[in-house]
Amino acid sequence: MSIKTPITVAYGDGIGPEIMRATLDILFAAGAQLELEEIEIGEKVYLRGISAGIEDSSWESLRRTKVFLKAPITTPQGSGYKSLNVTTRKTLGLYANVRPCVSYHPFVQSKHPVMDVVIVRENEEDLYAGIEHRQTSEVYQCLKLITRPGCEKIVRYAFEYARNNNRKKVTCFTKDNIMKMTDGLFHQVFDEIGAEYPELEKEHWIVDIGAAKLADTPEVFDVIVMPNLYGDILSDVAAQITGSVGLAGSANIGDHCAMFEAIHGSAPRRAGQNLANPSGLLLGGIMMLNHIGQGHIASKVHNAWLKTMEDGIHTYDIFKEGTSKEKVGTKEFAQAVIARL
Amino acid sequence: MSIKTPITVAYGDGIGPEIMRATLDILFAAGAQLELEEIEIGEKVYLRGISAGIEDSSWESLRRTKVFLKAPITTPQGSGYKSLNVTTRKTLGLYANVRPCVSYHPFVQSKHPVMDVVIVRENEEDLYAGIEHRQTSEVYQCLKLITRPGCEKIVRYAFEYARNNNRKKVTCFTKDNIMKMTDGLFHQVFDEIGAEYPELEKEHWIVDIGAAKLADTPEVFDVIVMPNLYGDILSDVAAQITGSVGLAGSANIGDHCAMFEAIHGSAPRRAGQNLANPSGLLLGGIMMLNHIGQGHIASKVHNAWLKTMEDGIHTYDIFKEGTSKEKVGTKEFAQAVIARL
Ligand SMILES: CC(C)[C@H](C(=O)O)[C@@H](O)C(=O)O
Ligand SMILES: CC(C)[C@H](C(=O)O)[C@@H](O)C(=O)O
Repeated sequence: MSIKTPITVAYGDGIGPEIMRATLDILFAAGAQLELEEIEIGEKVYLRGISAGIEDSSWESLRRTKVFLKAPITTPQGSGYKSLNVTTRKTLGLYANVRPCVSYHPFVQSKHPVMDVVIVRENEEDLYAGIEHRQTSEVYQCLKLITRPGCEKIVRYAFEYARNNNRKKVTCFTKDNIMKMTDGLFHQVFDEIGAEYPELEKEHWIVDIGAAKLADTPEVFDVIVMPNLYGDILSDVAAQITGSVGLAGSANIGDHCAMFEAIHGSAPRRAGQNLANPSGLLLGGIMMLNHIGQGHIASKVHNAWLKTMEDGIHTYDIFKEGTSKEKVGTKEFAQAVIARL
Repeated sequence: MSIKTPITVAYGDGIGPEIMRATLDILFAAGAQLELEEIEIGEKVYLRGISAGIEDSSWESLRRTKVFLKAPITTPQGSGYKSLNVTTRKTLGLYANVRPCVSYHPFVQSKHPVMDVVIVRENEEDLYAGIEHRQTSEVYQCLKLITRPGCEKIVRYAFEYARNNNRKKVTCFTKDNIMKMTDGLFHQVFDEIGAEYPELEKEHWIVDIGAAKLADTPEVFDVIVMPNLYGDILSDVAAQITGSVGLAGSANIGDHCAMFEAIHGSAPRRAGQNLANPSGLLLGGIMMLNHIGQGHIASKVHNAWLKTMEDGIHTYDIFKEGTSKEKVGTKEFAQAVIARL
């Protein structure tokens, strides 16, 4: 008899509830040992006047379970609302955002058939520090913050990740030809810590040409570590060019807690129609199972999901005449995965 | 008898001198009426201890001619050297960086055969303002500066460009869900000024998913306006996915002066071997001819260049067995363009 791991789940907004139900159905059918604590986040909470979209009591659940499986949410328009993602990352100290971007060509058509890139994004600092001023009515400033401890944690994480996952190379992207102090520090720490990993190849690219190379020939990259905002932009680029931004999950890792999610948004226009692809959140869920020591279940789910993709059973977003076999809804996709467990 | 327009030229470093000679040979052969004032910039100047890589006397030439055709330069490693590009843009008030990114498929193989995107990049503000501090030995900050006059100038430029060049749509990229004041201002000014251009379609994308879309389906974009750093990164992405970053020229436009260049760098490893592709600088030169009222020569050069590309006469960087016909050096490429004038 196995002990269940308590986790906190939030169903989110838009397509969130549908993809969360599909994900949990699959995880439980595979035998995941989870005890769910449900919290409410997102639009409804914002509209109750809570500026970060999450109730105080929810933090208690998160601090207790230390594991958060989160569906996408919708942040209402308006300057009074703070990003729940950013608040959660900072409150729980989730300094590493790990985003594997993998091509499933030929099962999912991609112009980049052999890519397998993991973006390790710093997750607390940079322009996300949330320090913005109105200097005069015509002049606004936002502070980009880079600290040595912040750089050390994320760079160390990237190298450890590469070592533990049999990766060969770690690349660093910065704009240190312009930001010699902030990005310069990130690059310097990369060189310092990289020296402790002699078995790994190391390289640094200026982010502009690095991004160009990533968009054009992603197959030359392996693990890429970078400051927060570059990571935000380039993980979306990398995920999208695998075939769909809907096929990437994300792990937000801290020393004490971790949050797992899809990298896409809540797609309100697709909500409630049994259309959405649950794969991004499911892949986040697989990362979660690995994190909490249920790696054998994680593999089982991953294999069943791969088999479903390979069998051409696809949701509308990746369905393509000729490549795909059957166009299915969210629930039917989940059933297809479960049937292959 | 036509009057010659005085322009300032700099041969730069690395492959700079070769591609500048090829470019000027073509422009003169086409009948461009130019009187050259040569200045020295880059590595040699830096190493004489001049921190911005340009002598004071060169500014006099630039302020007199107001037109600068510039080859790429090499900035020596080390924190004492300031970017010549950034210094020039700021000193001369070159607020608009215009970067057309066009596919020449099937003559140059591209995964994105029908793209024709013009990136209009703000060129003076943002994290490029050059305000960086060391707060403590462990904490560094860089200031992102966005001003209303800065936003107004670049957004107005983008809409005027679209109107005058028969473009249909102007898209704006910001991260205003996080940077509500700075990027929020840019977005707000986009909406305000956009209202004066009812004939143009307008849209705004959050930069992360906008970048993903650009890298994946660039054909849905037309003119895109954005703050400096996003423009730096995404113009390299857009140029590269047309087939090569070597096929894009760039105009840096101010109220009084303008600078024209290739968007790629000085590629020191390729220097002095008659290998480099002069197309990026040549396309910059064509933008220059349009700017100084020699549009008929500009068209003549552009057509001859297109014909050369279509005839499969290609430098090593874009040569491809099957698609290309003849692999040529820098000089031979220039001769081929001249033969087609
Ligand atoms: C929703 C937004 C605040 C978030 C970010 O910018 O980090 C998202 O784009 C992401 O990448 O997780
Ligand atoms: C060389 C560098 C300072 C420059 C920039 O960052 O603007 C370059 O990348 C460019 O895009 O022109």
